[in-house]
Amino acid sequence: MARGKSQTQRTRSYESDEHERGACEWCEYALVITLATILLIGVSALTIFWVFYYRDGYAWADGSPAKQFNLHPTLMVAGFITFSGFSVLLYRICRCFRRIYVKLLHAIFHALAFPCIVIGFLAVFDYHNKSGINNFYSLHSWIGLVAMGLFGIQYAVGFFSFLLLLICNKGTAGFRASLVPVHAAFGILTFVLGVCACLTGLTEKALFSIGADAYATLTDESIVVNAIGMSIVAVAVVVLYTVRGTGGYRLRKVAAQHPS
Amino acid sequence: MARGKSQTQRTRSYESDEHERGACEWCEYALVITLATILLIGVSALTIFWVFYYRDGYAWADGSPAKQFNLHPTLMVAGFITFSGFSVLLYRICRCFRRIYVKLLHAIFHALAFPCIVIGFLAVFDYHNKSGINNFYSLHSWIGLVAMGLFGIQYAVGFFSFLLLLICNKGTAGFRASLVPVHAAFGILTFVLGVCACLTGLTEKALFSIGADAYATLTDESIVVNAIGMSIVAVAVVVLYTVRGTGGYRLRKVAAQHPS
Repeated sequence: MARGKSQTQRTRSYESDEHERGACEWCEYALVITLATILLIGVSALTIFWVFYYRDGYAWADGSPAKQFNLHPTLMVAGFITFSGFSVLLYRICRCFRRIYVKLLHAIFHALAFPCIVIGFLAVFDYHNKSGINNFYSLHSWIGLVAMGLFGIQYAVGFFSFLLLLICNKGTAGFRASLVPVHAAFGILTFVLGVCACLTGLTEKALFSIGADAYATLTDESIVVNAIGMSIVAVAVVVLYTVRGTGGYRLRKVAAQHPS
Repeated sequence: MARGKSQTQRTRSYESDEHERGACEWCEYALVITLATILLIGVSALTIFWVFYYRDGYAWADGSPAKQFNLHPTLMVAGFITFSGFSVLLYRICRCFRRIYVKLLHAIFHALAFPCIVIGFLAVFDYHNKSGINNFYSLHSWIGLVAMGLFGIQYAVGFFSFLLLLICNKGTAGFRASLVPVHAAFGILTFVLGVCACLTGLTEKALFSIGADAYATLTDESIVVNAIGMSIVAVAVVVLYTVRGTGGYRLRKVAAQHPS
């Protein structure tokens, strides 16, 4: 009976079958959470500061396409970096919570990222059309399209497989377990592509708006744009370091459950 | 005695304690190797084609700084993508080889990447100085500096810890094992930063050399430059998918050997 209860608990959270954390691990854990929170909020705050201080703030339909464009970097950084970053990290660092709560938090943060990415995309698409600029010609736009496509597929597959299929919990357990490492690997990939899209976009924006000559003299705005880029790199460092081995961990657990 | 022999074999290769691969896993394995080889060689081949066909080839000290610059993208793509990519993948896919051979192959491929990165850096540094362009002002250069720094540290730490310390095999086993997940996590990170540096560099080059207006009309050269960028993205997809869970795999093995 006691064994049965422990079995049930094991299926509800991720770390009940792991060893207890040592003091050193708790320190690393606290450091990562603090650093990640500062960086994830900081990168969006810095982008908003940049737009208000150097780029005249935001607008949509008041006849200022340049101000409408400003929604694009802000919302894409919020969607692909801040919300997605929190979502990935929460999934990794809340492993002693009940699984369903962690999944819901993961889904909610991605649900917050979703409208940011959609409106961010529409903002630049409409800006290009209003200003007579071609769409989808640059490397940045190609990477962005792939990242958005992957984000959509991942969200749909994740929502269907890990939340909807819980209706038929027992019958889909094997399928869901085998999908976890693939979802984790492509999730990290989507995040990395989001990072690449942001960095190439910032490079384009710096050369277009600051201008190649002024950018090369490292004006105040150049430093702010580079700082946004380097904060995104720092977020990538923290997220990739924190999620190291997530896919493998689950893969090995599945392999142990279903030995071939 | 038989147990002792099996213990020794376990320490020599990575997968002797894993389950045998199924037909499906072998198919995935063959597909990844083929795809990775085509992409890794293809991306460098495409860069060389671009330079010869659209950018007048290479030179160093014949009074043509633009031709000297061309060494920069070619060598950086070769160093950070082709050689580093092969090195990371080889380490992951040759896991049934003897450990020391895999380590040596990993070290040799990174040793090939090393001079590419150094000469690639000197080429652009010298080009900037000859042409009176400031150094280290762009986001691309900042990311590139971090990537080069990490590459150097990883190479030094890896060479010292995983090859030199083998002189004192037994005494350093615990230290080396605990270093593996950190080396793996920062290795993947260095690779991702190399990818980011290449993509921001290609964006800069497209806007500087093709020009913003011509780039927006998607000329032949724009498509070639974007194709190089997307090939790098494809390499990142294959490499990140292949190495998923490497750090975790070793981390869990270490944790099992040294429970806290």
